[in-house]
Amino acid sequence: LLGPDLHVDLDRADLRRSLQNVLRDAVRAGRLPAGTRLPSTRTLAADLGVARGTVTSAYEQLVAEGYLTARRGSGTAAGSVPSAAAAMPEAAGSARPRIRWDFTPGQPDLSAFPRAAWATATRRVLASCPNGDLGYGDPQGSRALRQALAGYLGRARGVLTSPEQIVVCPGYTSALSLIAAVLKAGGTRAGPDAGGPRIGFEDPSLPHHREVVAHAGLAVAGVPVDERGIRVGEIETSVVVVTPAHQYPTGVTLDPARRTQLADWARRSGGLVIEDDYDGEFRYDRQPVGAIQGLAPGHIVYAGTASKTLAPGLRLAWLALPPELVGPVVAARRMIDRHPGVLDQLVLADMIGSGAYDRHIRQCRIRYRARRDRLVRVLGERAPAVTIRGIAAGLHALAELPAGAPAEQELIAQAQQRQIAISGLAGHWISAPARRPGLILGYATPAAHAFEPGLAALAGLLTAVVRPGRG
Amino acid sequence: LLGPDLHVDLDRADLRRSLQNVLRDAVRAGRLPAGTRLPSTRTLAADLGVARGTVTSAYEQLVAEGYLTARRGSGTAAGSVPSAAAAMPEAAGSARPRIRWDFTPGQPDLSAFPRAAWATATRRVLASCPNGDLGYGDPQGSRALRQALAGYLGRARGVLTSPEQIVVCPGYTSALSLIAAVLKAGGTRAGPDAGGPRIGFEDPSLPHHREVVAHAGLAVAGVPVDERGIRVGEIETSVVVVTPAHQYPTGVTLDPARRTQLADWARRSGGLVIEDDYDGEFRYDRQPVGAIQGLAPGHIVYAGTASKTLAPGLRLAWLALPPELVGPVVAARRMIDRHPGVLDQLVLADMIGSGAYDRHIRQCRIRYRARRDRLVRVLGERAPAVTIRGIAAGLHALAELPAGAPAEQELIAQAQQRQIAISGLAGHWISAPARRPGLILGYATPAAHAFEPGLAALAGLLTAVVRPGRG
Repeated sequence: LLGPDLHVDLDRADLRRSLQNVLRDAVRAGRLPAGTRLPSTRTLAADLGVARGTVTSAYEQLVAEGYLTARRGSGTAAGSVPSAAAAMPEAAGSARPRIRWDFTPGQPDLSAFPRAAWATATRRVLASCPNGDLGYGDPQGSRALRQALAGYLGRARGVLTSPEQIVVCPGYTSALSLIAAVLKAGGTRAGPDAGGPRIGFEDPSLPHHREVVAHAGLAVAGVPVDERGIRVGEIETSVVVVTPAHQYPTGVTLDPARRTQLADWARRSGGLVIEDDYDGEFRYDRQPVGAIQGLAPGHIVYAGTASKTLAPGLRLAWLALPPELVGPVVAARRMIDRHPGVLDQLVLADMIGSGAYDRHIRQCRIRYRARRDRLVRVLGERAPAVTIRGIAAGLHALAELPAGAPAEQELIAQAQQRQIAISGLAGHWISAPARRPGLILGYATPAAHAFEPGLAALAGLLTAVVRPGRG
Repeated sequence: LLGPDLHVDLDRADLRRSLQNVLRDAVRAGRLPAGTRLPSTRTLAADLGVARGTVTSAYEQLVAEGYLTARRGSGTAAGSVPSAAAAMPEAAGSARPRIRWDFTPGQPDLSAFPRAAWATATRRVLASCPNGDLGYGDPQGSRALRQALAGYLGRARGVLTSPEQIVVCPGYTSALSLIAAVLKAGGTRAGPDAGGPRIGFEDPSLPHHREVVAHAGLAVAGVPVDERGIRVGEIETSVVVVTPAHQYPTGVTLDPARRTQLADWARRSGGLVIEDDYDGEFRYDRQPVGAIQGLAPGHIVYAGTASKTLAPGLRLAWLALPPELVGPVVAARRMIDRHPGVLDQLVLADMIGSGAYDRHIRQCRIRYRARRDRLVRVLGERAPAVTIRGIAAGLHALAELPAGAPAEQELIAQAQQRQIAISGLAGHWISAPARRPGLILGYATPAAHAFEPGLAALAGLLTAVVRPGRG
């Protein structure tokens, strides 16, 4: 009647549903072209050996869905539906060689993620949180997490804030795009130039963050970085994004005099500093230097994240805002994503409260410190022409290559042939003078068991291709 | 030396750190005004009975942080820091009466959230997911969830899609704002009018969704809704947002002929339909009508959510996109929030895979159906002048009030005095002719134990204030 597969697919346990599926698929696949008359319900029921009501109800359902049409007096017919939508083809498997040793920056050691502690905290949260916590939440973020963060940030990062000034965001990208949207809308003293203020970024800095700001419709301007951090005197914008604890990617720390100068600049000019404290928890040669936010809390947006302390996949970050920015940021948030998922927020609050978060950070600090020491020593021995720049901190080091070294792209390609992933410095510059090539080495990325063999492979590569410079 | 509290606060277990805290607080609180000379490290160490190195290192740290300044030859002095940032005052406790019976729409019964199943799935995910899953994830959403959703949506909602066309979003607000951003940027055939296309919305519809689109910079136009759903012939925009399974807030379902007409309109005009299938899983008088997306998958964006099936706090929603929209949406997503948190995604994928998600929906369907039946019966008996509109579906019903009933705002205020929260229809209209007042009753909102007494309270209110109409 409708082709052989009609009978084959009928599921006797749920006749109506399976009949519907068969008919729907037949219309979709073009086996029943638009306008094709279907048998009467009585005929089809007899043919299939099912109750007539089953067929009637299946027809009705498909008429309601538009796969069939019913016209009084002319029975039921197939509707007009495009035959099988073009499914997107799977991306063809790329032919890149497999990577064994991953030294790209930006991720912590994911094998160290505290899975057991997270599961325990999740169970505790699910056993105890009020039902109301599962509903539409506070666009500022869960109060429990904001309270935990206010305590943590004051204690660990010297941030001067309160739960009322904290906004939890699903990651720093979201936090930055949210602030950019607010600045673009001119909702703060930092605007309103027509079109919103230009945003200063350290030169070099992470391209993705500049793209996020540009995507929000704001122009970007570079501010040079030297061995003492961003050159505050050369800021020409009213808003500037900085990484004072551990400049990305150069790895330098902002000099004490520059810290004061930056806070003074913001206070005097009415400018806004966005402090991207992405890895401030990790300093190995001394106690972490506190956030600059504490020097001018009314003029500095502090941004922290769990992406380096726990895992980027969580998408958890936070802003400590000057009071007058809270309202505009929360208002924008309501129109963009309402609020971050509550469970992850409550679990993180639980882990901060129980001390598990601090404990995890301390353990990571010890491990990453050892890794950085090994990196410096092994490369110093085996590739002495390579200079490791920056302070002993964070999850990455900048390896400056000597004159005469291969170009970054060539080095990256050679690394790939040895199954090593590394990342180049070149794309991070805003201005474009000729500079020495460099590699940004993410030494936290490999899992624990892979670090030493990976480091040996990396040293082997650099020994082979980087000779002491002639320049 | 620095005031009596210096000694009080010193923690002998971590002298350096506590000394730093004391000094930092003193500078912040203004007890050490800018420029105040501090004792030499030798003097202070002797005074406190601690090693000189402890004081030296605390001074250095605070100089690095900017709280102190050190000038060669002139010792150490307090830095210039604003005394105690103005913390935002706590929002003053509002004087609204406590709500006992909550019938506002938009939320499922949160007391029914499958906490145990969620905790179990979380444990399973954390015990088994590869480390790489915890890193920066796929901006389209975790592949495991997209696969699970493609199967679920085909099976449960008749959506014709594939994992490659699904984009997971942190809630429908985020999904809608993302699409609006793409349309605004003119990245699709639906644009580009200068300024982006106007977006049609059902009149009435949820104001928040129109605000989300307006916030993205697009203009909004209303399309009338009658007893058969949106009047397709009156769409004058190139993009339209619809709620075909269960129109919000009127509760009508889109008539079969209109479904076909809408799909035809999209195909013929090259327009784009955004199908907001917010509660399509819940239909009580018959099997749910499938999504219209299957009628014209190349022209209809399907949007589903876990906010009604599980809980809004999760912030999990999904789009099934026409193939050519996937690229622009994912590109925009990278600049807005990268991707939703991975753990919630993997847990939901696990629950769909294990059948726990379908089981939960079936249980909820039975419960909500019983609630709706009770609502219709009890109000029919005790407040017969009130007409319940719309089909037996979803989590809300529209209660139309007779002529002569109090105005919505007055009714809402009277309800509040009886500790009942209800929501009015008025704010949902785009056009503004005089219409009968109505209440949108969210019968899923109360916890199970609160439903019957809440319904009795609601009926009592309506009996008391709504008399049969004279018009």
